[in-house]
Amino acid sequence: MERISTVRQIAQTKGAEAVLLTFLPDVRWVCGFTGSNGLLIVLPDGAHFITDGRYTTQAQSEVEHATIHIASGSLFEYAAENGLLAGRTSVLYQADKLTVSEFDLLQRRFSAVTWIGADDLLVHVVASKSPEEIERMRRAQHLTERVFEEILDVIRPGLTEKEIAAEIVYRHLKGGAERMSFEPIVASGPNGALPHGRPSSRKIQPGDMIVLDFGCHLEGYASDMTRTVAVGEPGEEARAVYEVVLQAQQAALESARAGMPSADLDRTARRVIEDAGYGSYFTHGLGHGLGLQVHEWPRVSHTADYVLPLYAAVTIEPGVYLPGKFGVRIEDVVVLHEEHAVNLTSARKDLIVL
Amino acid sequence: MERISTVRQIAQTKGAEAVLLTFLPDVRWVCGFTGSNGLLIVLPDGAHFITDGRYTTQAQSEVEHATIHIASGSLFEYAAENGLLAGRTSVLYQADKLTVSEFDLLQRRFSAVTWIGADDLLVHVVASKSPEEIERMRRAQHLTERVFEEILDVIRPGLTEKEIAAEIVYRHLKGGAERMSFEPIVASGPNGALPHGRPSSRKIQPGDMIVLDFGCHLEGYASDMTRTVAVGEPGEEARAVYEVVLQAQQAALESARAGMPSADLDRTARRVIEDAGYGSYFTHGLGHGLGLQVHEWPRVSHTADYVLPLYAAVTIEPGVYLPGKFGVRIEDVVVLHEEHAVNLTSARKDLIVL
Repeated sequence: MERISTVRQIAQTKGAEAVLLTFLPDVRWVCGFTGSNGLLIVLPDGAHFITDGRYTTQAQSEVEHATIHIASGSLFEYAAENGLLAGRTSVLYQADKLTVSEFDLLQRRFSAVTWIGADDLLVHVVASKSPEEIERMRRAQHLTERVFEEILDVIRPGLTEKEIAAEIVYRHLKGGAERMSFEPIVASGPNGALPHGRPSSRKIQPGDMIVLDFGCHLEGYASDMTRTVAVGEPGEEARAVYEVVLQAQQAALESARAGMPSADLDRTARRVIEDAGYGSYFTHGLGHGLGLQVHEWPRVSHTADYVLPLYAAVTIEPGVYLPGKFGVRIEDVVVLHEEHAVNLTSARKDLIVL
Repeated sequence: MERISTVRQIAQTKGAEAVLLTFLPDVRWVCGFTGSNGLLIVLPDGAHFITDGRYTTQAQSEVEHATIHIASGSLFEYAAENGLLAGRTSVLYQADKLTVSEFDLLQRRFSAVTWIGADDLLVHVVASKSPEEIERMRRAQHLTERVFEEILDVIRPGLTEKEIAAEIVYRHLKGGAERMSFEPIVASGPNGALPHGRPSSRKIQPGDMIVLDFGCHLEGYASDMTRTVAVGEPGEEARAVYEVVLQAQQAALESARAGMPSADLDRTARRVIEDAGYGSYFTHGLGHGLGLQVHEWPRVSHTADYVLPLYAAVTIEPGVYLPGKFGVRIEDVVVLHEEHAVNLTSARKDLIVL
């Protein structure tokens, strides 16, 4: 079904005549626009897309299923002045993607409308990826893997985390990435015990474990991968922890499938880590959805209370972080099918000792 | 005066007992926190900073003037459960930096509070930079200039815009930048006529004009610079337009000072371009403020209705864009003093023909 029809159906179930989409990744998902300013009004019998003059040409080549409007000032003001919601009495809007000030303006300018706010309006339908989306994600993930292989030749004692991060970014952009999906994490030695540390000026030392976590956007879609490598012999404890994290990830990869409670998938990996005595050092959830955004619904977490949807793309990324010592995290992206998960990631996972 | 006292003074003038800051650059400006999740409650006799467990260590080393709290879930819920606004009846909040859903939660959880919404709450005080901030901006701008000089040796026919952009990013990160302040613009030949085009796979050709617009964050603060260079002889029209844009910028740099209406500064440059017959091809405002963000209040624009504040850092970036042919833009960052502007940018501005 066309995505815009899906939006109309959601409007119906919420008792709304129209939908105002203000969250850009959702606007893109529905009508194809990739710019940085735009909103979409979905009506039962049509749709209006509004952007500004910078995007006149781009909107014409990208936007489908909607009449294109170019506003010179506020997009909301344009919609009001041009009566784009004329005659509509109930409109669904994204309450978690609109500021209080913007909503005040809407209420003033569309005084005849009853506004129906919703959080997470499209997350369930956006989560299920089409075959074309999965192919794009596979290409993005493949570029990230290629960069990982190149980076293995770059890493050596004496380089700083920041320098390695710069190499990672450079190679993604040279490889065609539109942008990084987040600032690369290069966390060496004790820095690896901070799950989201930023690259520092710390120099790589012999014996370091290094957590490398990075991804890009290619054709709109995000990649995300973590590998932990050693620079010289890291010692017994590091090897043991690596093996535990790898087994935890393997257990999750083997049991992952659509229809499974998110919490159960998290626990599959968590149990392996707990049984090895490291339970209190796995301090985050197992993974997250991704697609047009690098972090999307659903989370894969023992605190989540929902079931994982069919064709969702999610990360599986268990980790163990020993304060003052090192961290280990291993992350793949998988797509959930009815009976199994398809791994989009093929980079090797045995402990690499450089 | 301490910044937190400034916030208290603003609260007083708005008749509020407390202020809730939710916009992270403002939170950073007041208390120093540089992480990605946090909020600040400023009371007449103290302040509360709330973040999550990822930032325990970082908050302790960064945050000044506030009691630090670590929340395990929603920061707003934490504030409610721990009575951080107990006894306060009127609280100022950032209506343009809070979603409708977040505000609904606040209203439910703090039923005794009257919420006073404000847009642009701190923009006027954030705009005036301290000497230390200006030094940081100078260092950021200097790094960007150094990268520009290096890039001149890289640019040659056959390279794509994307490849040049990758080199620009790489050199900034290697030079110590925390991140780019925006995706670099590398717009060659006819692409230069799109003021905000993204780097494409177009290969540089002999005779091209190339618009190079980029900047980074260093020590938190943003740089931003544009230069337009030619690859081989670009021809008479390009040389003539370059001269007009340069003269327009020069006129603005010479007249810029604090206390001047923003519109007047814009018109100083615009008049030069209009007099040369290119007025309709200068399709954007003259500049924008910058600091912790690369785009801040004030805009420098003929449509602005305010006066430029003392010690504001703003860009001066006139441009002429000839559709189908080329574009020229030249951009410096200046700090506005009482009688003149101090240019933080020293990269050469004669037309460079590579």
